[in-house]
Amino acid sequence: MYPSSRFAVAVHVLTVLAWKKEEPIKSERLAESVRTNPVVIRRILCALHRAELVISQTGAAGGSRLARPPGRITLLDVYRAVAGGDVFGLHHKPPSRRCLVGSHIETVLGGVLDEANAAVERVLARTTLEQVLLGIHASAAHPGKR
Amino acid sequence: MYPSSRFAVAVHVLTVLAWKKEEPIKSERLAESVRTNPVVIRRILCALHRAELVISQTGAAGGSRLARPPGRITLLDVYRAVAGGDVFGLHHKPPSRRCLVGSHIETVLGGVLDEANAAVERVLARTTLEQVLLGIHASAAHPGKR
Repeated sequence: MYPSSRFAVAVHVLTVLAWKKEEPIKSERLAESVRTNPVVIRRILCALHRAELVISQTGAAGGSRLARPPGRITLLDVYRAVAGGDVFGLHHKPPSRRCLVGSHIETVLGGVLDEANAAVERVLARTTLEQVLLGIHASAAHPGKR
Repeated sequence: MYPSSRFAVAVHVLTVLAWKKEEPIKSERLAESVRTNPVVIRRILCALHRAELVISQTGAAGGSRLARPPGRITLLDVYRAVAGGDVFGLHHKPPSRRCLVGSHIETVLGGVLDEANAAVERVLARTTLEQVLLGIHASAAHPGKR
């Protein structure tokens, strides 16, 4: 539930790949742009590879590139690839069934949390990596505007 | 961004206090209902006390109770009391300004994350603790329905 930069870093990495098109980009170069350790980048690339959002090749001429056009990758795809699950979780272990609240809180709160998660997913689903890249170019053309 | 049960536990604790009305409830009893360590409960009560959602008294007859009627406490109040900030965060440290994407990703992604956070807040703001407690009673009366 607390702010994590993992999603932001994944979007950053994929936006660089979208910008560079077919050119395979090495994790060291992505790490320089994000200003983090290449190990962090490789861990995120691994998750993105599992989700079939990037293709990574090893070797001297290796690197990573997008597995499909950036207009066909939404921020929800990215979120699902790197997040452990829903934004909000219920209790780690079931509460006491001997208490009225403990017996029913998961049912009641679960409904609200499902709504919150769905609201986040709707926002993320309507933005593609292509739009992020267009936003980057627009921001570069008009710095100071948002 | 990843599921945390801290919010769920805080709502659970406050719903027990709403159910028990004016009666001060000890952290040990709350811990039994949640099925966690009283230390976890006391840490959450401390955050809820700071946010002026509960009143806690020490001593033999001490315990915690709600600081105001449950109809005037929303899940957003609870969320703000126990969460460290927004659901989604940007990079931990600023990305490289020497890269086009690094220079502008925070501006572009920040807009999307603000929208996602606002969507979550809207969902949480429309449910009060009183409604959660009513939901608990409804679920107890009709088990199996959600």
